[in-house]
Amino acid sequence: MNEFDLIARYFAPLAGPEGLSLKDDTARFSPREDHDLLITTDSFVEGVHFPKAMYGADVAERLLRTNLSDIAAKGGAPLGYQLSVSMPAEKMEQWIPAFAKGLETTQAEYHCTLWGGDMTATTGPAVFSITLIGEVRQGNMVERAGASVGDDIWVSGTLGDAMLGCDLVTNQPILPAPKGEYIFAFETSYWRPEPAFAYRPILSKFATAAADISDGVMADVAHIARLSDACATLNFDALPFSMGAESWADGQKDPQQARQALASFGDDYGVVFAANAENRQAIFDAARHAKLKLTLIGSILPGEGSVCLDVDGQKIRWAQTGYRHK
Amino acid sequence: MNEFDLIARYFAPLAGPEGLSLKDDTARFSPREDHDLLITTDSFVEGVHFPKAMYGADVAERLLRTNLSDIAAKGGAPLGYQLSVSMPAEKMEQWIPAFAKGLETTQAEYHCTLWGGDMTATTGPAVFSITLIGEVRQGNMVERAGASVGDDIWVSGTLGDAMLGCDLVTNQPILPAPKGEYIFAFETSYWRPEPAFAYRPILSKFATAAADISDGVMADVAHIARLSDACATLNFDALPFSMGAESWADGQKDPQQARQALASFGDDYGVVFAANAENRQAIFDAARHAKLKLTLIGSILPGEGSVCLDVDGQKIRWAQTGYRHK
Repeated sequence: MNEFDLIARYFAPLAGPEGLSLKDDTARFSPREDHDLLITTDSFVEGVHFPKAMYGADVAERLLRTNLSDIAAKGGAPLGYQLSVSMPAEKMEQWIPAFAKGLETTQAEYHCTLWGGDMTATTGPAVFSITLIGEVRQGNMVERAGASVGDDIWVSGTLGDAMLGCDLVTNQPILPAPKGEYIFAFETSYWRPEPAFAYRPILSKFATAAADISDGVMADVAHIARLSDACATLNFDALPFSMGAESWADGQKDPQQARQALASFGDDYGVVFAANAENRQAIFDAARHAKLKLTLIGSILPGEGSVCLDVDGQKIRWAQTGYRHK
Repeated sequence: MNEFDLIARYFAPLAGPEGLSLKDDTARFSPREDHDLLITTDSFVEGVHFPKAMYGADVAERLLRTNLSDIAAKGGAPLGYQLSVSMPAEKMEQWIPAFAKGLETTQAEYHCTLWGGDMTATTGPAVFSITLIGEVRQGNMVERAGASVGDDIWVSGTLGDAMLGCDLVTNQPILPAPKGEYIFAFETSYWRPEPAFAYRPILSKFATAAADISDGVMADVAHIARLSDACATLNFDALPFSMGAESWADGQKDPQQARQALASFGDDYGVVFAANAENRQAIFDAARHAKLKLTLIGSILPGEGSVCLDVDGQKIRWAQTGYRHK
């Protein structure tokens, strides 16, 4: 099967009406009135963002979910996406059916469709890229900038599973050996990160600034603080590590350093956001009412604009907050 | 300089207000009322769509222009684009300034801006991908489907320079050796294909179906015919080859076969469109009035739905119309 046939057989069934059955060079979309569009792009390189020669459903799900995560963190809802596939020509026929299946599952779960894209052959590492388009009521996007001094910092869900999932998937030894249920949680967190759409009502109502946790919670908080010309403090002991991650950290020689690694890794893909401290009780109540795990982890402090993060009284410079790798 | 610094220094100045200074994970765009959006994606792989280790202004211009060409052929106007860059990390600092310069020049010429994207490192061939968003008055997109039996087929500009430009750029011998002015035309056509925006009023008013010439004029006409459940005939002698391409073809052992190669190659990136034959004179007048080269090259014929192209009475099957490579 050539590329035209693969597109017609496996990708065209994923297309929404905007995709014109993938028979045109462009998609056509009629935006709703009173809505802004949100547009985000994430690309995966073979051997960097997913293990070598894994071109199947897992990588497709992970790619689409990381894009969905950006839209979720901005308070938006997904609509459709453009897909660029560059992979070895001789692998296409074998892998594209599974890759498409992964997209199909994820599309169905998050209510978006394929609008178009491009498929090319490369002799080197595969590169998959998605540009996802979402919408939000006009003016309601939660930007990364916009936090004020005194704002609380909240984080959704739990942290840490993604790093250990990455280690598992890339065959890096995890000691102490995780229990079976942790292994499942780690792998799921790596391959199927959950975009924070459940938090959308809370974000829309309360967040002054937000980002998904892609660079590690410390780095992502630092990004938010820097864009608000401020500093931030994190109560490190409040960080909601998962039980599996806690169990791993407690088995390390330096558990505190292990937790810092977990908080620096990224790929957790929950949402971290700032909100006025006056709304603390209302946010707490809203999360409880919606049965959502939401943890108060710090606050925005006055800062001289230089990027720093105050973690339990210890100043951390910007350069030290970055992620180990993605 | 790391990737964050390169983005801040070279890409952020290209961002429109929608790009939020490239400091957020998503762009935000407020669509105009009564307009549809057009979305297209084209990706370039190093060594396939551009020569190896050329990561500079030329490849950036060619990439953005091929995307612009899709929007132009649909009767739209460009707005903004998402850019995905995957290239060797150690080459970034050297090449990104020139790459960004190529985008800047092209943006300024065609009035669009950078909205966002992703930058990743790969150890293999670079992959550059652009998703371009344009707009058109609601309902005014010229689709690839939509031609009727009896419609004329028109093509913009001249054909053939792109194939010879590709041969030049990829160091394939061109004999007879082209004259200096042809060399310039060939190279320009390869690196800086011209999107057919000048033809927009004609397309909007008259075209029933259209496509940019990316797969070769024969294949692109066949696409249009097939989507209209029809066949098409081309008057091969009417194809408007450039003087340089004619000169090259005349020097070949079989000039007719050489012209067929030119018509099969693609990358010309003009526009080919169908229009009701009743509008023939009006289209002719409109082109003359606007000083645009526009050539009547064939018509849509009844066909049994199987894909075929009748070139001067000789039936050509779909499989034989395809492009040599892109």
